[in-house]
Formats: sequence, structure tokens, C-alpha cells
Amino acid sequence: MRTEIPPQAPGAAPAFDQRAQLQVDAFWRAANYLSVGQIYLLDNPLLTEPLRPDHIKPRRLGHWGTTPGLNFLYAHLSRQVALRELEMMWIVGPGHGGPAAVACAWLEGTYTDVYPHVGRDADGMRRLFRQFSFPGGVPSHVAPETPGSIHEGGELGYSLAHAHGAAFDNPNLVVACVIGDGEAETGPLAASWASVKFVDPVRDGAVLPILHLNGYKIANPTVWARVPEEDLASFLEGHGYRPYFVSGDDPSVMHGRMAGVLDEALDAIAAIQRAARQGGGDGARPRWPVIVLRTPKGWTGPREVDGKPVEGTWRSHQVPLDKVREDGAHLRMLEEWLRRYRPEELFTPGGVPVDDVTAVLPRPERRISASPHANGGLLLRPLRLPDFRDYAVEVERPGTETASATTVLGGWLRDVVRANPRTFRLMGPDETASNRLSEVFEATNRAWSAERLPTDEFLGPDGRVMEVLSEHLCQGWLEGYLLTGRHGLFNCYEAFIHIVDAMFNQHAKWLKVSRTLPWRRPIASLNYLLTSHVWRQDHNGFTHQDPGFIDHVLNKKPEIVRVYLPPDANTLLSVADHCLSSRDYVNVIVAGKQPALTYLPMDEAIAHCTRGIGTFPWAGTDDGETPDVVLACAGDIPTLETLAAAELLREHLPELKARVVNVVDLMRLQPPTEHPHGLPDAEFDTLFPPDTPVIFAFHGYPWLIHRLTYKRAAHPHIHARGYKEEGTTTTPFDMVMLNDLDRFHLAMDVIDRVPGIGPRAAHLRQYLSDQRLDARAYTRRHGEDRPDIRDWTWSR
Amino acid sequence: MRTEIPPQAPGAAPAFDQRAQLQVDAFWRAANYLSVGQIYLLDNPLLTEPLRPDHIKPRRLGHWGTTPGLNFLYAHLSRQVALRELEMMWIVGPGHGGPAAVACAWLEGTYTDVYPHVGRDADGMRRLFRQFSFPGGVPSHVAPETPGSIHEGGELGYSLAHAHGAAFDNPNLVVACVIGDGEAETGPLAASWASVKFVDPVRDGAVLPILHLNGYKIANPTVWARVPEEDLASFLEGHGYRPYFVSGDDPSVMHGRMAGVLDEALDAIAAIQRAARQGGGDGARPRWPVIVLRTPKGWTGPREVDGKPVEGTWRSHQVPLDKVREDGAHLRMLEEWLRRYRPEELFTPGGVPVDDVTAVLPRPERRISASPHANGGLLLRPLRLPDFRDYAVEVERPGTETASATTVLGGWLRDVVRANPRTFRLMGPDETASNRLSEVFEATNRAWSAERLPTDEFLGPDGRVMEVLSEHLCQGWLEGYLLTGRHGLFNCYEAFIHIVDAMFNQHAKWLKVSRTLPWRRPIASLNYLLTSHVWRQDHNGFTHQDPGFIDHVLNKKPEIVRVYLPPDANTLLSVADHCLSSRDYVNVIVAGKQPALTYLPMDEAIAHCTRGIGTFPWAGTDDGETPDVVLACAGDIPTLETLAAAELLREHLPELKARVVNVVDLMRLQPPTEHPHGLPDAEFDTLFPPDTPVIFAFHGYPWLIHRLTYKRAAHPHIHARGYKEEGTTTTPFDMVMLNDLDRFHLAMDVIDRVPGIGPRAAHLRQYLSDQRLDARAYTRRHGEDRPDIRDWTWSR
Repeated sequence: MRTEIPPQAPGAAPAFDQRAQLQVDAFWRAANYLSVGQIYLLDNPLLTEPLRPDHIKPRRLGHWGTTPGLNFLYAHLSRQVALRELEMMWIVGPGHGGPAAVACAWLEGTYTDVYPHVGRDADGMRRLFRQFSFPGGVPSHVAPETPGSIHEGGELGYSLAHAHGAAFDNPNLVVACVIGDGEAETGPLAASWASVKFVDPVRDGAVLPILHLNGYKIANPTVWARVPEEDLASFLEGHGYRPYFVSGDDPSVMHGRMAGVLDEALDAIAAIQRAARQGGGDGARPRWPVIVLRTPKGWTGPREVDGKPVEGTWRSHQVPLDKVREDGAHLRMLEEWLRRYRPEELFTPGGVPVDDVTAVLPRPERRISASPHANGGLLLRPLRLPDFRDYAVEVERPGTETASATTVLGGWLRDVVRANPRTFRLMGPDETASNRLSEVFEATNRAWSAERLPTDEFLGPDGRVMEVLSEHLCQGWLEGYLLTGRHGLFNCYEAFIHIVDAMFNQHAKWLKVSRTLPWRRPIASLNYLLTSHVWRQDHNGFTHQDPGFIDHVLNKKPEIVRVYLPPDANTLLSVADHCLSSRDYVNVIVAGKQPALTYLPMDEAIAHCTRGIGTFPWAGTDDGETPDVVLACAGDIPTLETLAAAELLREHLPELKARVVNVVDLMRLQPPTEHPHGLPDAEFDTLFPPDTPVIFAFHGYPWLIHRLTYKRAAHPHIHARGYKEEGTTTTPFDMVMLNDLDRFHLAMDVIDRVPGIGPRAAHLRQYLSDQRLDARAYTRRHGEDRPDIRDWTWSR
Repeated sequence: MRTEIPPQAPGAAPAFDQRAQLQVDAFWRAANYLSVGQIYLLDNPLLTEPLRPDHIKPRRLGHWGTTPGLNFLYAHLSRQVALRELEMMWIVGPGHGGPAAVACAWLEGTYTDVYPHVGRDADGMRRLFRQFSFPGGVPSHVAPETPGSIHEGGELGYSLAHAHGAAFDNPNLVVACVIGDGEAETGPLAASWASVKFVDPVRDGAVLPILHLNGYKIANPTVWARVPEEDLASFLEGHGYRPYFVSGDDPSVMHGRMAGVLDEALDAIAAIQRAARQGGGDGARPRWPVIVLRTPKGWTGPREVDGKPVEGTWRSHQVPLDKVREDGAHLRMLEEWLRRYRPEELFTPGGVPVDDVTAVLPRPERRISASPHANGGLLLRPLRLPDFRDYAVEVERPGTETASATTVLGGWLRDVVRANPRTFRLMGPDETASNRLSEVFEATNRAWSAERLPTDEFLGPDGRVMEVLSEHLCQGWLEGYLLTGRHGLFNCYEAFIHIVDAMFNQHAKWLKVSRTLPWRRPIASLNYLLTSHVWRQDHNGFTHQDPGFIDHVLNKKPEIVRVYLPPDANTLLSVADHCLSSRDYVNVIVAGKQPALTYLPMDEAIAHCTRGIGTFPWAGTDDGETPDVVLACAGDIPTLETLAAAELLREHLPELKARVVNVVDLMRLQPPTEHPHGLPDAEFDTLFPPDTPVIFAFHGYPWLIHRLTYKRAAHPHIHARGYKEEGTTTTPFDMVMLNDLDRFHLAMDVIDRVPGIGPRAAHLRQYLSDQRLDARAYTRRHGEDRPDIRDWTWSR
């Protein structure tokens, strides 16, 4: 990728003269007109006749408040793109900005390019209006359906993180990020201001944050609109920005101010990048510009309705005139409002925008709403993945030697980084080393543009590893990076990934909708590596023990979500290779970081992962016959305990036919009607014969196994063990004992569940129970697990 | 509650002379000694003999890095408490601060008060050391087990919100809140700085944030430690604070600086409160103090280990010397490190802290670690609850008249506020009005200490409603408020409550552990009112549609969690009254805000809610006989659709015996072995006869019903409908149709599931299917639902 040195900055743009102002204003009025039309009108789009109630939508489900400000910005940004030949995309942070983004895209022609049935003419305008927030139409927010967007304006707080994700490794891109003042109160947005400390002015693009203070949320003033302006300036300067303020409500004045400030801000960006890219700067950390735009909420809308102020208050948040179908006065106010934009000057009688409206726009390839970055699949190139087989650990005999699965993965990831130096990033909330992926630091640094000290390790502006103690930022950056056509992996402590539950939800929803839009090209999957997991957080205690993200993920569309529980290093390599090659999914991989037994040589690991579920014949005693019991397991520690239980049973109950089944791809448990990976019933019934008891040792909450298998013939006989929310700071084996997932308890479960085995195994059951007591007593006496348990290996 | 005017500020505290410094330093050294002892030692607590490997714990699971800074602060805070007779509690934000909080509490005697087996003598010290991070002992974090804490140092980011929750309505309390610089990178913490704009200096206490920059997280520098100090100052000033900096590493200098700055800061707090409480101030928004303390990570620990710098780097985050059992040199370094604190000067030979160590401490009632606010149940007084029956809507005939459930609840909540003016708060992320609870504004304002304009409504410093566009802040404030012995309710859009999934997890874990500690008194339950729910977010679209919080909640301990789905206004009143009276639970109430049919007069509503599950005999056609089908429902919209389906069936298949069962308390579905509210099997089987098909219309994801009922005899015949992640901006009825939860589909399900009914109902099935198509076509043509569906009422 070529990194351009931006053109000489000062004076790059011509003066903002009267003609320019007229054109920007024409675009703005046209976009506002189209926005109001979308919210209200079923028909009569050009007001060729007086408005009648039957021209009005029965339900008016839009939001006017933020819209005129967004249109205002779009006009000015577009003008700059045209003048400077910028490569720009925008992010619409404020909620409910849908009408604006759609209106601007339609004016640019992008909307019609993408949706040819919505032409840029009177009939198209009628369709544009009708479809908005209408059954079978388009949503009220900026959404996947909106051309030019990678960001949904529903749940708030993620705009600035998305913007940075988009800018990373796109050196020629400027991402204009509009942040609502409501949104600015959220935690994720508040954390996102720190993103600027992770921007490399040489190799990354620029983010231009535009904090839009329209003063109100749904029903309240916003905090930032009600503090002295110098406080807000201090806040932004404290984050390392140089703020520019644009405030007012008179359009004729505001156009000039906005044009001037935008000029300065874009000049500043160009100067920063030029200094960094030509080298020889003073080395001082750059002060990136941020714009604060203060305009009335519902600007240019009805000033007062039924005696109450509307423009400039929270009352214009949604639909300022809500009785237009019932109340003639309201209907007249709506018509006056629409006519104030002078549509007859903006559109031909045929509904085509006149030249003065489109004069500010850049040439088609530069249109903001047509940015290929906002449809990242267009730009996506497959990762060059080193052959993961080359990183395999040797497994001569199953269950006898140990490896740290994530350490092994780290070696492969190092070479993924090397092979894809500008299209792959690894995110982690200060846990990459703790999660034992440190081999990546042989190839790259952590991204870091703040001060460095001689004692630091692996910090640099161009690092491929992004670490900040904010799961929200890791997730938001990665989403922005993926949505603009790149690749990545988020490694995280398992328990704390719940911090981004809501962000995952929204990304999964985005993918679900995107898949129905043929023009949106597939993007790289969102890959989670969850490690430092529940069973090995014995040292960090109860707060760090939570395997519930899997449950959360499985509520989303089966077409989107995948969950893998590789039991050892080689299976993890195979799974990770698969996930990094996939598209449009969310893949959750749960794997261990501690040294742990390895079970499968690479060829068997690949076969096992490809099947997703299968027997460990070497561990079973069924010899291919119908077993007396199935010992099923999913996850590294459950697999370990299951194998140890199998060994106990083999030793003490040699006549028992036990089959060991290991599950890597959790979705194989569901029927194929429920998930595309579902194992056909016939195959499931072969693995789990319908009348045979199953003792299922699961990594997560045990009831999830029931949820996944309740339609299976064997379900009445499945007895699941897993984490049942018992934990503290203790030893690894005490953790499994606290949750009845230990080898002794699993073997006891077998005795309790296999019909007819009870009497002859009474003695063994007592022995197992005593073993549990002894193991616990040992732990409490010595502060560590019994050596025979700690050092256990498979010994057949 | 009496609001004291703080004493005249300047010069309140005597000078920090040499003797004071000696005493503060002695306490600090003693606490540091005890902290290191906890991390390493099994025995030989007073170093009466040279350290041997068998004195060392086999696994050393503590964290040294943040500990000395915490001890330093505790010493200085305690001195001020003693001198000023302050009422103070502290919040330990940095992760892994356990050793410090435990050490300080032990030195104060609080630890022994609470845990008499850990005496304040040599044997007690040995026990103190041994139990730390040891199986059967205490966790490595500040945790429920730690006296003086309401905050767990596991998942980071919530300290400052907790601190404010504690300070609200506690006018005489000062909450010292230590914030780690790692924690400061998180979203929730970043948002929490805005909390100061919600503090009423008259009626609330003060929070003194102390941002502790020790420079490093687990493996990385922290962002705030690596920016120019003037940037950090700007940032804090921008938030409206006045920052005080204390930086250095020489204890003899640092003691004096810290004492001086703490004096100034506490003087400033006293001055702000005095000005506000005496009135007549200049009306300017106060600038509350914040302290920035910059000290080396692992201060006073090993400077260098194996040739690598440790003190002042991330290498001291956890255990700086990790080979003490194997490596004699490391063991000697540990002993030297411990002896550097001169334990012989700090403890008598019997292990009792000498007078110079305890001289800085306040009298016992004022001890920070003994603050009753940190064991809020001690201070808890039951809410005065107005009789909810007085707010009942009249229901002459079921399903014929409408009411907005949350509007009705709002009337009751208004009077809850009036009856409990200082002990109840209502939290909401700018949604209280949208959620139709506006009647509360007849009794109170929204809390707001920033600028107000004449057009504003319901804003004031003393408001009981707390609105900020941050679910994290709402949750964090409420947790702090509850944990210090008060009451509250969090109202939230259902979909966005996932934003606090992780915070809920941690609070549920806290409650689970607290219940095992007899000295921790029960606190008021954490109550969620989730409204603007999935079925009535048709206008806001797919991003706003997510009923999965219930699933998330049910992974936590059954003793803690409760989920209620009242179908109408009167049942909501009954449920809410129950929840606000309860203790130590998390109650999730899901209810509608739109005008909806009412079903039960108040006496029946109470009986129904008390049972939690029961038939609607007026809606069924089984007449007490064994039914052909059970129509079960949970949630307002599923209840509506089920009743409409029941009516269709009654009309078209009059001979079919259908029973209608409504579920309010979702936990009744589980067996009593799984949840304390579980319905006994015999009762369940009476409601749901084992061989009778059940068509279950559920508010949330349908598989949850299977998870809850898989052990029930009727389970193989339960067919659940619910939200299956289909949605967009559309109409309410289209929403239920998209998810096959509509009346027509439910009736079709009956035809498909009741044995033998198919042939004679083929015509009806076709009719129902046609109705669906027609209803959808109508919606797409007119943009609203068919009037007969919109206006449907029960008509028997």
C-alpha cells in the first residue's frame, strides 16, 4: 500500500465565497427536505399539490432532532472531499440519523446505484419517502441497508472506536466521525477518546471527530452541552486534541464558520501526516484536530408547536409535529416547514436535484456515501496463512506430554502477522502476554504512540498488537477494522468478554442483515480467542470465573455464530486456521493457556476438527460395540477430567464398556434444523445410542448442553456437568471439585447412571468419594493439588 | 438525616511534624510487611528465624504492584479521619489490592472483630498470612470477605461509580476512591468522571477520587502515565475538578507531600459543602478536588531481580520474586525485603502492632475498615411502600380495557419517592419519560448539578431520578447506593441492558458470597424494570430488539436471581411491590409501556402473582377437565396473542378443550431442585398434563423454555414460540408474525400438535395461513396493522 504524502496544507482549498455558500446551502436544504419527507410523506413528494392527510404516513417513525446537523456536515464534508480530492468515509454516531444518511446518499446518486428501483427522480423520491421506517422498507437508523455506513445508529457509544478501526492501516483515508452529545456520555465513547494515542500518523489514516452538541437526548439536556465551553476544551486538550468550535443557529453565518474550521482542521491533519511521513519533525506528539459543532436540536424545524418551544429543545428529538393526520393546523405547519426549504429551487419538476444542489459533491469515485471502505468486503483480500501444520506439537502417544495451546498458537500468529503486515491486527485488553501469545512480539510491537521509556518492551507506533485496558475499545477497533475489509483476532480473559456482550449483539445483528443485502460483500469473521478461562482462574478467584459468553452468543442467528472448544494445541491450530479463513461469522474459540496434555497428532487433530465431534477410540473401552455409557466432553479441562475418569473406570470396572466422545464444534450437538453445523440425527444416534447414559463434562454452564440436545433421542439420558457458579481463589483441582466436574465425581456419575452397575460398584463409589475428600484435604493442608492429580497423564 | 455543616476548613489539621511522619511511616511499613507476608508466607510470620523454603507458600497467588500505594494512602487517610473526626469509607479500584485492604483492616483490629480466629497477635498473623489466596482461605482481591469494602477488585472500571452511589444521600460521608491507572482506561471509569455533575453538595456526601498512577498494567504502561502531566490536568479540569498532584518515590519526601495535599483537598471539600449548605455562595459550580498520586509500581519492593528492573515496572505487577522456594538467592532477597520494613520495630514479640503503628488510626467507631456504610445492611431501613392496591386499574371484564402498565406503576413510584425522600432513587439512561414513568416527576426532579435553562423540565440538584446516557453509570451508582444500605430501581430499554451484563455478573457474584458471610447484613435487591421491550420496539428497529438479558441472568445462582413477566398493569404493581421489599436478590421485571389490555382485577392479580403461574379459567375451554392442549404464555404480548389464538380456536373449533396458563414468575417452570421458586412436579403435572401438547408463547428466546422445563414430564410435548432474532422497523403485529408468535400461527401450532385434529381442521388451518398473508399485505400497503388486530379485545 502506497502512503501518500498529503499535499501542502495551507490554502489548499479556495475561499468560501458567496457562490460556494449558495451551493452548500442548496445541498443542505435539499437533504433536509428529503429527510422531512422520509419521516412524514407517503405521497406528493414534490408538494405539487397542497398536503392532504392521506399523503401522510399513518405512523411517523423517524427522528428529526439530529438530522439537520448531519446534513449540514455532509454538505461541508463533501465540498472538502471535492476540493481536496480526499478519500473520506463518515461515521454517524448520533442515534436515529437514518433520514440524513439516506437523503445524502440519494442526492449523490449512490442510493440509486445500490437500489435501482429508487431512482433519482420524482417516482424514486416517492419510493424513498414511503419506504423509510415502513413495513418492508428501510429502518429508521443508519443501518447495514444504508450505503456508505459501517456503523449502526441504534445502540450508542461505538462511533469513535469504529472510526479508528477504519483508519488503522488506511493511510490515505480520512474518517469523519460525528459523535452525538448523548452518545458522548456513554462509557465506550468516553474511553474511545484515548484511541488517538494509538494512531500512527505514518501508516494509519486520520480520524476527524466532530462532537455535535445539539444539547439534548430523548428527554434531557446533555452533560457536555451544559458545562462551560472552556471545560469542554480542556477535556479535549487533555486527551491530546486541538479543539475547534463552531457554534450558532443562523445558517448564513454558520456556513462560513464551518467551511473555515473544516479548512483549518483538514489542513492540520495534512500537516501532521506530512511531518510524520517526510520525517524530520520535532518528534512531539501531534495534536490532532477535533471539531465541536453546536447547533440547535431540530435546526430549521418548527420553532414552536402548541405553544411549546420545539426547535432547540428535546421536543424535536423524534417527530416534532405528531398530529399532522388529525389536525389541520399541524398539517399546515408541516407543509410550511417543507416549503421553507424551497423545493422548487432544489429539484426539477421531474424530481431530479438541480446542478446547484449537486455542485458541492465530489466526482463519483470520491462520494462519501460510495466509499468502498464502507463496504469492506469489496476490498477484502484473503489472509496469507502460514501452514498451521508446520507448528504442530508432536504427539507420540495421546495424553502423555504437555504443551500450552495458546503458546503454540502464538508461534503461528507471529507468522500470520509477518505474512500480513498491513491487514491483520491482534486485539487484547492488556492480556496478550498473560494469555501466552507472546511469540507474536518476535514479529511486531504493541501499537503505542504515547511516551516510551528505555525499560519498555515491544512498544511502537506501528505495532500489530493493540492493547488497552478496555474490552470496549478492543472490540470497537476490531469491528471497524473488519468492516473496512481487514482481519483480526480478539484475545481476552473469558470472564471479561461479557463486557462487550452488547457490542457483540449489535455486530451479529449487522452481519445478519448484511447477508441479506447482495451488494454488501462478505467480510472477515469476528474471531474471539477466550482463554485464561473459568477452570484456570483458580488463582484470580470468583470474579474471573464465567464461561457464559457462549450462552450469550448462541442467542444470535445460527447462520452467524460458531463456538469451538479445541481440547489441545493441535486442535487449536486447526480451528484457528479455519476461523481466520472464514467470512461473515462470529467465531468463539475457547482454549487453555496453561501447559496441558496433548491428545492428537496433527493429522488426527485436523480430521477431528473437521468432523467437529468424534470418539477418542484410544480412551474408550467399547471397542466399537454399543457402549454401557458415553463419556462426552467439550473443553480442555473437561476432556482431561473425562479421560482421568475413563482411566479410573477402566482400572476398577474393566468390564464396563465406556465410549469417550469429544466435542470441538459445539454446534454439532444441535439438530441440523437448528444450526447449519448440526449433526444429522442418525449420526448423533450412532455416537450417542438413544438408551445409553451419557455423562457430559462441559466447559461452560451445564444447562447449555440440555438446550442444545433436547431434541435428540438420547437427551433423556444425558447428564451434564459443568460450571455451576462455584468458585473462589483456590487450586485448579479444587475448582473442578467445587463444581462436581472432577474425575472422581464423573466416575461416580457413571456408577449412579448405568443401570445395574450400582451394587457391584458400591465399593468403588465409596473409594471415589473418599478420594474427593482426601484430595480436598490435601489441598487445604498444602495449598496445592495432590501430586498424582497434578501430574496425571494417560497411561494406557 | 442531619446534614452537618463541616467545620471551618483551613488549618483544621495540625502540622505534619516529624512525629506524625514517623507514625504514618510506621503504619505504612507495617501494612507493607503484612502484605508481603500474605503473598509469600505460610509460617514464621515475625521472621523469628531465617526464612526457609518450607515457610513459603507453594503457590504464590497475590499481587504486589498496587499494594504499597494503597497502604500509603490508607495511612494518610486514616490520619485525617482521626484528626478531622471524618466519616470516611474507601473504595479500592485497582485490581488485586486484596493484601493491602486486609493488612490495614488487621492493623486496625477490624479484621479480628469480624474474624475472631484471626487474632491481632503472632498466631493471628500466621493465620492471616496463610489464609490469603489459599484453598479454604480468602481471595486475592478486595472482595465481600474484606471488611470495609463494597467493591470487588476483580473486573475493573466501576470504582468511581460505586463511590458516588455510596455518597449520594450520605451528606456527612467522604468516600475516598482509589482509581487504578489501568482501570482508568476502561469505558465505565471514563464515563464515571461525569458523576460529579450529579452530586448535590447540600444533601450528598463527597467523593475524593485519587487517581493512582503507578504506570503499568499487567504487561503494558498505562496511557495516563505516559502523557504530559498538563494533559492529565486539563482532562480533569475539563471534567470540572481541581487536580492536586503528588509524585515521587522517596518516602520521606512523599509523606509530607501527601499530608499537605490531603489537607488541602479535604479543606476544599469542607469549604464547598459549607458554602452550599450555609447558602449564599456565588452559585458557581464547585470545583471538587481530585488527587493524582504518582508512585512506582511495586514501591519499596525488590528493585532488580535477575538483572531486570522490577520496582517501577510492570514486572512487579504480580509476584516480583517467584522462585523463592527453589532459589536460595531469591529467598534471601525476600527476607531482606521483609526485613527492610524493620518488623521488630513494628510488632511486639507477640505480634501485636506497637503504639507508633496504630497512632495514626482514628478511634474505633471511625475506622475506615469498620465503616457501617460498607456493610450497608446494617443501616438498611425498609422502604415505606404505599399500598399498591390503591393504584389498581379497574378491570370489570378481562381483556376489554387498556392501560399502560408502566404509567400505572409510575403513579405508585411517585409516592414511593414521596414516602422515602432520602433512601430511594430511580435510575435510567435518559429513558424514564420514554418508559412512561413520568408521574414520578410530580414528586421529584432529575438530579442535575450542571447548568439549567428556563426551558428545562424536572431538573434539580436533589432529584431522585438519575438520568445519564450510560447504563454503566446507572448500574454502578445504583450498586453503590444499594451496597450502602439504600433502595432503588433501574428502568431501561430491554435490549440495552446487555450493556451491563458484566456488571450484573459481578454484583450477583458479590451477593452470592455475601450470603455466606454472617456478618454481612442483607441489602435491598437490585431491581431492573425492563420495558420498551422487544415486541414494542417495532419503531426503533432490529438494534433495539433483544430479550436475552433473562438468559444471561439465569446463569447466576438460583438463590440470587428472579425473573417476572407481569402481563398487565395490576400484576406489575403487585410484582414491583414484592421486589422493592425483597433482600439480596436481583429481580428482573419485564413489562410493557404501551397501552395494553388488562386482565385481572387487583385481588386476582395478587393471587396470580403469589402463585407465579396459573390458569386464566375465563379464557380456557377445558372447564377443569383434562385439556386437549395447553396454551401457555409469559409476557404481555405473548399473553395477548395467546388469548387471541384461544378466541380463534374457541370460535372455529368449539369442541377443542384448550387450557390457558399464564406465567408471571418464570422460575416456577424449573423443578424445585433447580430453583427455590420451582413448582413441585405434581403441581406442574396438574397444570401441564404429561401427554398434552403445550403451545408456549414466550416473551424471550424460545429455547429458554426448554432449558427450564427439560426435566418436566410434559417436556417432550412443549412447543415454544418466542423471539428468534427476526426484526426490523415495522409494525407491532408484523414483529410477532416475523417470529411466528402471532395468534394465527399459535392457532396453527395447535392444529399441528394436537393428535387427530389435523383432518377436521384443515380448512381452519388454511384460513389462518391466509389471515397471516392478508395481515402482512395490509401492513405493507397501509403502514400500520389491520384495525381488527390493532383493536382486538377479548369478547367472550
